[in-house]
Order: sequence, then C-alpha cells, then structure tokens
Amino acid sequence: LRNLEDLVARFFRGDPLALARTISSIENRDPGARWIFERVYPRAGNGIRIGITGPPGAGKSTLVARIALLLRAEGHRVGIIAVDPTSPFTGGALLGDRIRMNELLGEPGIFVRSMATRGSLGGLSDATLEASEAMAAFGLDRILIETVGVGQSELDVAETADTTVVVLVPESGDVVQTMKAGLMEIGDVFAVNKADREGADRLAAEIRSTLDLHRDGGARRAAVVKTIGTDGTGVPELTRAIREHVAEARRSGRFEEHREKLARTRIQRSAESALLRGIHADGALLRFREDLVGRVRRGDLSPYAAGEELSEAIARSLAAHA
Amino acid sequence: LRNLEDLVARFFRGDPLALARTISSIENRDPGARWIFERVYPRAGNGIRIGITGPPGAGKSTLVARIALLLRAEGHRVGIIAVDPTSPFTGGALLGDRIRMNELLGEPGIFVRSMATRGSLGGLSDATLEASEAMAAFGLDRILIETVGVGQSELDVAETADTTVVVLVPESGDVVQTMKAGLMEIGDVFAVNKADREGADRLAAEIRSTLDLHRDGGARRAAVVKTIGTDGTGVPELTRAIREHVAEARRSGRFEEHREKLARTRIQRSAESALLRGIHADGALLRFREDLVGRVRRGDLSPYAAGEELSEAIARSLAAHA
Repeated sequence: LRNLEDLVARFFRGDPLALARTISSIENRDPGARWIFERVYPRAGNGIRIGITGPPGAGKSTLVARIALLLRAEGHRVGIIAVDPTSPFTGGALLGDRIRMNELLGEPGIFVRSMATRGSLGGLSDATLEASEAMAAFGLDRILIETVGVGQSELDVAETADTTVVVLVPESGDVVQTMKAGLMEIGDVFAVNKADREGADRLAAEIRSTLDLHRDGGARRAAVVKTIGTDGTGVPELTRAIREHVAEARRSGRFEEHREKLARTRIQRSAESALLRGIHADGALLRFREDLVGRVRRGDLSPYAAGEELSEAIARSLAAHA
Repeated sequence: LRNLEDLVARFFRGDPLALARTISSIENRDPGARWIFERVYPRAGNGIRIGITGPPGAGKSTLVARIALLLRAEGHRVGIIAVDPTSPFTGGALLGDRIRMNELLGEPGIFVRSMATRGSLGGLSDATLEASEAMAAFGLDRILIETVGVGQSELDVAETADTTVVVLVPESGDVVQTMKAGLMEIGDVFAVNKADREGADRLAAEIRSTLDLHRDGGARRAAVVKTIGTDGTGVPELTRAIREHVAEARRSGRFEEHREKLARTRIQRSAESALLRGIHADGALLRFREDLVGRVRRGDLSPYAAGEELSEAIARSLAAHA
C-alpha cells in the first residue's frame, strides 16, 4: 500500500512514469489497480475522448500522430491510446505499423500508450476507458484512441469516445462495405484519407450522399474531410471538424447524455460481476453449475432453464448471507 | 399457445416453413421464442457447426455455397446461416453479395437463412447459436455459419462453431494484418481463396510458416487449402480438411470440451440476466441506480464502487423476496 500511495503521489505530481505504471496496472488487472483507480477517477472529468477508427491500412496511426501534434500546438496536452489486437501467439502487441508513433515519443505534452486487447470481450473497452480516465486525471485534456480494424469490440471502444472519427481510404471498399462493418453509424466525422489516390472524391461524395439519405430530420450531417496523413493535407480541417462536433454535442446536451449512459452501463456491469463473484468462492454453487452443464449437454435442460436454476441458487445463497 | 404447439408439431414433421418461423421468432425475441426453443433444444445434439469467416471480399459466400453443395452430394442435410451486420440505416440485412446464395434456395436438403446482427453485443452469437440449434433439431446435420467481416462479435460467432474455417485472399493483406484481426488463432482450417491471383502461393506459405512457428508441442497444424470459389477448385480438399478436423476433435475430446465450455458460458450468462431482470421491475432499485449514475458523473464515486453498492441493493432485494 505504501508503494501504491507513493505511486499515486507521483502521479499527481505529474510524473509520466507514474502514469505509465498506473495504466500498466489497469491493463494487467494488478491487485492494486482498483485502489489506484479509485483515487484517480474523481479527477478524470476534463479529458475529451476522441476515437479514431477504420479498416486496417487506412493510415489511422499517421493521422493520429498529425492530429496530436496539431492539438499540442494549440496548447492541449494530448494522450494517445493505440489499441492493438493482441495475438496469443506473440503474447504482446504487434507494433508493426506503429513505428510512426515513435516521432511522438519524448514530445513533451504528448503521452503515447499502446494497449493490448488480449481477446477478452468487454475487457478491451473497460481497460481503454480506464486508461483514458487515468490520462485525463493526469491532466491530458484530449485523448485520442485509435482502434485497429473493425468489429464489435472495436466499435465498443469507439462508442466510449465523445467524438468518433472514421478513417476510410479509396481502397477500403465502397460505402456498402463500410455500412456492413457498422462504421457509417458511429462516425461523427469522416476522414477520407490518402485523398491523392484515385477514387477519393468519389468515396467522399458517396459518404456524403449516404449520410444525407439516412439523416433524420434536422440532425446535423457528419463532416466529411479529405486528408493526406503522410503530408498533413486536410489535418487542420479534420481537427476543426472534431472540435466543432464536441462543441455541438456540448451545446445540445448529447455530450452529457452519452457520458451518463456510459456511467449507467459501467455501474450495471460492475453490479453484475459483483453479484457473480460470490459463485466462484462457493464450492456448492460451482458443483451445482457443473451439474447443470452436464444436463444441458445431455439435452435434458436448455441453457436458459439451467441459467434460471443457477440464478435461483445464487439468490438463495445471497439471501442466506444477507 | 395453440399456435405455438402447432408450429412445433409442424417443425418436427419436417416443414421448412416451420423452421423458418422458428428462427424468425428466435431472431425477433418473440414472446413465444423461449417456449419453442425449450422444445427444440433437446434434439439439437447432432448438428456439426462449421464457421466460415474472414475479411469482406474474400469470397466467403461463394465458398459456402460450394461446400454446401458438396456436403449435400455426400448425403448430408445442410443448414446455412449468413450473418449480416445490419445497418440501423436500412433496418435490414444488406444482401448485396448474397445473390450467389440464391442458387441454393429451393435446393432440397439445403436450408439457407440470413441473420441480422442488429448491433447488439452478445445477441448476435446467442441468436446465431439458437438458430443453428433449431436447424440441428430439424435434422440438418451440417450447419455452415458465415460471418461477414472481422471483429470481436464475429470472432464470438466463430468460437461457437465446432470447426472454424478462415478464408483469406491475397488482397486481404499480409499475415501480420490477419494476426491483428485475431483470425490466425481461431482458424482450424485456412482457405486461401482466389488462388489463381498473384500472391496466393506466397500467402499460403506465409500462413503455413506462421502456424508452424507458433504451434505448441505436438499439436496438429491447421490445414491450409488453396481454393477458387468461382470454379470450385480446391473445394473438395477444403471440405475434406473440415471433416478431418471434426473427426480429430472428436477423437481427442476437444469437441466435447468445447461444447461443455459453451454450455457453461451460456448458463452463466443466463443466470446473470435472470438475476438482473429483477432490477427493471423494481422502481426503488431503478431510482437508486439513477442516483448512482449522478454520483459517478460528479466524480463522487467510481463506476466500480457504484456497481458494488448496486449489487448490495440487489442482493438485499433478492433476500427480501426469497
């Protein structure tokens, strides 16, 4: 505990190593992580989370680096979280295309962190969210969260962001593919990257018309900005579109509404796991569950009927200890 | 109830329309769905589930159609579930590239079904699994489950399969991208499709060497098969590789182990939702939760501490009603 107190003290004195250790402890689910997080959370209110997502190869890392440098130049302190799907093969993040992030390492006022996904459902968005809150509590006021690839887990991460930027490139396929991947719905701002390539104008026009087609009522259409990450073209316009989205969400109340919804979900899930934690400490309940597994496998009982039996056993056990 | 009894009777007489209606009721979470599922589940033991996954544009639908025809020719009765990420924009499945499936519609002994994802976490794999169990209970003994795209939700669907086929094409990027997407780990069989294109041999070699590199001990390496879905080249070899994987998993006990694990997860999740269902019927608990949301938003309480308070309130309420 003395070590943890020391860590938290260094954290609030602004030691970046203490922030790094805090995030590691969150990521590894260290025994002290929760204790640290409890101290950090109350100060996490002021960081704006910006999700940057899109298919592999869209040039997200380069754009993130550019946006970070621009935000820094405007006086912001910037955190970057690069979410890496981890391979159990290698046991660590695949840093292949993260090299460009290196130019940011050592830049004062920019803190870069890669997070491994470990393939655990739910765990990814939890750990990323907590890491971003640690960054916010540390005083970083803009946090860029880059998710590689597409898919539900990545969409979940994007949904924790206050503003989501979807990065597409002409090669990433037509808008129908993008809609299929669920990206059209989550984008608050669209970047058509590698805009010097053939098909960029067509892609931008397609995105705009798709967004127009499906806009409900008076809602503001998401901005579509053409960028070239490698030379920085369009990045000021992209950064401005992000800022305008955040400002608009604050004015309309959607910002607070979204954060409340996120809080509700986290509380609910935390309550669920607290309720279920008991079962793992209770040999009789565990045996009962294994008995149910056998009955379900034999077709004697459906998984749902078995789940209800288990829930009743848990409720009885909770009642007995209440 | 009379209608539902009639539906189940027609289902077990082999009426394909009754199967279709059963799956729709599962997908829509109709009030009667659970009642029907309870009757169907006990007979679902004999269907083998084969997941077919890979990036968009890999030609999965065409391969699935080819495999289905081949399995049918071998005397199997085949179910196909095509999982479509749904766009809230259109409210329905995007059937753009499913046209090729049409050649299977009306083929006796092959039943094709498209499932919309509706973007609900967990819901996708639940509904897909239940639909495949309905198919198995109907007497379809091989069920092909095609998931479009990559991502956690799709990986979850793949993980419910007894055997998972990962379809890649030279254009889908190198093996590092594939590993990032989490596909290398889940593949029991790899199909390098569009194998007449440049880079197919290199991709197959890369997959083999990656699999070799990371193989633990005496484990059998996943098969890598080159295919051309459009003309059927390699499909018999692919189908044989799938069959061999299933046979091997049965011999080693991994088949039963995997299904038991799946049963355990479903029971556990069903117990969780049964425990939490109470809260939505309990005005005082709901008000308490909203109060917690406010305290979390103000930074007075972390979401975890709030979740524990909520779980204690739920336990007290359960105890009071026990």
